[in-house]
Amino acid sequence: MPAPLHNDTFLRACLRQPTEYTPLWLMRQAGRYLPEYKATRSRAGSFMGLATNTDYATEVTLQPLERYALDAAILFSDILTVPDAMGLGLSFAAGEGPRFAHPLRTEAEVAALAVPDLDRLRYVFDAVRSIRRALDGRVPLIGFSGSPWTLACYMVEGAGSDDYRLVKTMLYSRPDLLHRILAINAQAVAAYLNAQVDAGAQAVMLFDSWGGVLEHRAFHEFSLAYTRQVVAAVKRESDGRRVPVIVFTKGGGLWLEQLADTGADVVGLDWTCDLGCARRRTDDRVALQGNLDPMVLFAGPDAVAAQARAVLDSYGAPQRADGRWGGHVFNLGHGIHQLTPPEHVQALVEAVHTHSRRLRMPG
Amino acid sequence: MPAPLHNDTFLRACLRQPTEYTPLWLMRQAGRYLPEYKATRSRAGSFMGLATNTDYATEVTLQPLERYALDAAILFSDILTVPDAMGLGLSFAAGEGPRFAHPLRTEAEVAALAVPDLDRLRYVFDAVRSIRRALDGRVPLIGFSGSPWTLACYMVEGAGSDDYRLVKTMLYSRPDLLHRILAINAQAVAAYLNAQVDAGAQAVMLFDSWGGVLEHRAFHEFSLAYTRQVVAAVKRESDGRRVPVIVFTKGGGLWLEQLADTGADVVGLDWTCDLGCARRRTDDRVALQGNLDPMVLFAGPDAVAAQARAVLDSYGAPQRADGRWGGHVFNLGHGIHQLTPPEHVQALVEAVHTHSRRLRMPG
Repeated sequence: MPAPLHNDTFLRACLRQPTEYTPLWLMRQAGRYLPEYKATRSRAGSFMGLATNTDYATEVTLQPLERYALDAAILFSDILTVPDAMGLGLSFAAGEGPRFAHPLRTEAEVAALAVPDLDRLRYVFDAVRSIRRALDGRVPLIGFSGSPWTLACYMVEGAGSDDYRLVKTMLYSRPDLLHRILAINAQAVAAYLNAQVDAGAQAVMLFDSWGGVLEHRAFHEFSLAYTRQVVAAVKRESDGRRVPVIVFTKGGGLWLEQLADTGADVVGLDWTCDLGCARRRTDDRVALQGNLDPMVLFAGPDAVAAQARAVLDSYGAPQRADGRWGGHVFNLGHGIHQLTPPEHVQALVEAVHTHSRRLRMPG
Repeated sequence: MPAPLHNDTFLRACLRQPTEYTPLWLMRQAGRYLPEYKATRSRAGSFMGLATNTDYATEVTLQPLERYALDAAILFSDILTVPDAMGLGLSFAAGEGPRFAHPLRTEAEVAALAVPDLDRLRYVFDAVRSIRRALDGRVPLIGFSGSPWTLACYMVEGAGSDDYRLVKTMLYSRPDLLHRILAINAQAVAAYLNAQVDAGAQAVMLFDSWGGVLEHRAFHEFSLAYTRQVVAAVKRESDGRRVPVIVFTKGGGLWLEQLADTGADVVGLDWTCDLGCARRRTDDRVALQGNLDPMVLFAGPDAVAAQARAVLDSYGAPQRADGRWGGHVFNLGHGIHQLTPPEHVQALVEAVHTHSRRLRMPG
């Protein structure tokens, strides 16, 4: 029997229900900008050593909550666990990004791809259960995965890329192969997110980190269509509560209306998109998450607070003139940078909570 | 007395005048994908050795025109010549991007910055004159510069960046310093483009390569405002003909209306923005340039032709139902990739010219 949730502000904002203030959490809030994270990671030996160990994953997930009054926790893991379980061999070399030992380049390699046995991802579901116990109802826990398209980028390129030449060459010359990868990814991601929900995740987020590199029509065919499949297949209730789904396409501001029509409860935005404009375009059919430029956190506390207020003001009062509510979940527009001074995050959290209460005061 | 212009299709499309077909040129059309370029560059010894030598710069500018029926030439140079002339010490290490020996990091370094003596950029104007002579009226010559913001990115970072941490830290914590850099850049860029026009450039393009990394409000304050200053200061007539100005903010699709209101004749688009949608948003107040994903050129000739037709179809017939003309200049949405097979470019040029004539046929 799970502990009752003491702070459900984040879940209510996701579902466009009344809230007393704007909840916030930060992408990569458990990460290298925190000295305590670096200490745990050095004990774990490697990034995957950290992510696959239940105790370590629980420990680092809770670290930012000890420092800051954040309104949600997010599972400590990586967006690429699913292709790793498919046998592509994920590793993180020191100082570099992720790398796959066995990328998909040939027709035979694509033909051999299959939805992985979820048992190979048991370490993730164990971590979810452990984190829920450790949270003891403090705040909700968010589960996540990379989107089918974003996974495919890494699966074909074998690593990060600055031009996505290999995956785009496949897209333009052998779209059939790419569609096969994406269809399998969509099934696998949906099953993976559902298993996270079964293990206790109270919201799930789909990171379409590389959707924004696609050409307009290709975005719809190769990213959005598969995001929609995943959203449709995700369980939306657990413990008698709705499980919100968040979709986030970095660089997807031009496709906001279509992202809002995927069936997701929340659309994440990077900082290029004005929140007020995004709210008008989606007319409160979804909640919005974002969208402070993470680089703001390198300025002093006063500048951080001023920029945070500007983001909140741009969204405006969540309750509309007609009495209905929109929903805003404050976040960065991208993961927090590893060199961020931790004390600036404190200034951000205070500014968001204080100013958003003020925004809700009558006229 | 300059030679009469034999093919002015590009200039007419920029100015939304009737054209028989859609003109095209390619960003970085004189570049490393061409074996003859690599041969000249190896004779020149270095990138700057190539750019600062009138004969070499002329030779490589004309190379793509020998192979393909392109409708414009673009000066062979770099977007960073202006800060180099300011004394920042530009160099290109083998296999890397540009680097400045003396980036601007301190208040004193910013205070010492000044508009450079244009005489230090004489090699550029000499190249423009030489290329005009060599072109002998075949097609128009485009001059260019980096935008004030894009130059500032490199001037503060000292090199390319994937997060723009240093320049954004300045932006959020010392906006006064950044505004000083941008004001000087705007003056310098305007003078530089005007000297290119005086030397014979028949159109000019402002590359705001990094405008798209800015937060919505910051884009308006730190990029767009200075783009507007430059556009307002550029001479618009030479040899009795209008000199079109093209502005291109990579990742700027959300700000298209504002870019169209800078006073530019043409707005360049990357491939994330649907041309038809962009045309409706700007209602033919400007011509549009773009926007094929350069990665399309890695697919086979049939796929290249199909994607080129899709871009042309998205723009639609340039002549409107009311008889007025829009204008479309076909281009890539970013520079051509160095590994592009040259024969695929041939397929692109043919598809654009053939299909765009068909688009102009009645009914």
